[in-house]
Amino acid sequence: MNNPQIHPLSDVQSKDIGEGTRVWQYCVIFPEAKIGKNCNICAQVLIESDVVVGDNVTVKSGVQLWDGVRIEDNVFIGPNVTFTNDLFPRSKKYPNEFLKTVIRAGASIGANATILPGVVVGENAMVGAGAVVTKDVPSMATVVGNPAKILGKS
Amino acid sequence: MNNPQIHPLSDVQSKDIGEGTRVWQYCVIFPEAKIGKNCNICAQVLIESDVVVGDNVTVKSGVQLWDGVRIEDNVFIGPNVTFTNDLFPRSKKYPNEFLKTVIRAGASIGANATILPGVVVGENAMVGAGAVVTKDVPSMATVVGNPAKILGKS
Amino acid sequence: MNNPQIHPLSDVQSKDIGEGTRVWQYCVIFPEAKIGKNCNICAQVLIESDVVVGDNVTVKSGVQLWDGVRIEDNVFIGPNVTFTNDLFPRSKKYPNEFLKTVIRAGASIGANATILPGVVVGENAMVGAGAVVTKDVPSMATVVGNPAKILGKS
Repeated sequence: MNNPQIHPLSDVQSKDIGEGTRVWQYCVIFPEAKIGKNCNICAQVLIESDVVVGDNVTVKSGVQLWDGVRIEDNVFIGPNVTFTNDLFPRSKKYPNEFLKTVIRAGASIGANATILPGVVVGENAMVGAGAVVTKDVPSMATVVGNPAKILGKS
Repeated sequence: MNNPQIHPLSDVQSKDIGEGTRVWQYCVIFPEAKIGKNCNICAQVLIESDVVVGDNVTVKSGVQLWDGVRIEDNVFIGPNVTFTNDLFPRSKKYPNEFLKTVIRAGASIGANATILPGVVVGENAMVGAGAVVTKDVPSMATVVGNPAKILGKS
Repeated sequence: MNNPQIHPLSDVQSKDIGEGTRVWQYCVIFPEAKIGKNCNICAQVLIESDVVVGDNVTVKSGVQLWDGVRIEDNVFIGPNVTFTNDLFPRSKKYPNEFLKTVIRAGASIGANATILPGVVVGENAMVGAGAVVTKDVPSMATVVGNPAKILGKS
């Protein structure tokens, strides 16, 4: 594999996508998004412009990466995982700057989890399926629940 | 801006969409849906026919507005927010009438929240990200959790 | 109705789809997927190859059926319901075999529920909207919450 492989049934405007990365059907990728090498961007994903995705990242279907999201290398983003970038959203009112949400290298975000804006998920952490993550997750930790808590702590 | 701006990579059958409203890629809008002015209907949204959306409404990606949903002016619907219209769904069995779900003016529904059928979310209320809303939300209230409870009450 | 009705704005590669089944806009169906008769596969659904869907099944928008998912007859899968097939997902690392998730005949999965891998949901069971199902659900039971518990039990 050399160039990225962009499915013709997608709308990919960015030119900054690494070699070996595949983008599937019905994805939308905005012009300034930066995506690394050997990623798999599954069908029905949307990626805005102020987004940086590392290498070897998997983004499953139904995910959107909004302005301000940073995804490091080797991260797994499960299906329908939902990111945010505004703590108190109101229609047609925008914050001066969107909060940065960072998923550190090797972390996995379980299916249908919700990540509040400005959160940092540490290296190799595991966010359980369906968790609602309202604060930073330490490296190596596993969190589950709504709101998400570290597994094994009460 | 005068007419609505309908992205060519969408399937929009309604003619009842207000001026200045934008509809993005891979949306599906049914023939009888009514959508107001200056709305932003983001990519990968579906809107059925018995739906009324006011003015200045934002609907983020991954949302479906089913028959019976009413969205008033200035509402924000976060990404992957999930509406319903049948309390006890069974495949191929339909209620006589779908329950009406109403989001009052100025309310915001946080990312990946779930709204049970027949619920009314009051004016300027805020539903937290990932909340599961099982009963009416008073005006101005903030609710979070599964099931959603008013913040600050136990 | 005789043949399946495949919307032209979808990417359906399987030939093993029963008569009377309808597939809507922006769906992706992989080559080996088996889908029964008189199903309704709503817009923006994805179905992988190692998936078997029975007859008279409804799959609402925003759902993905991953390798290993089995859906029996007369099941209702609500919008944005999220399946999984790997308990500890890591990017680019795959288990030897994906866990089988089975939804038995007549069951209904409420909107935006999350189903952990390997779970069996029993016949005619009802999974509440927004539930996170971490273990098997008995026949006829209703479960709600995160993690999901049988309604009426503490």
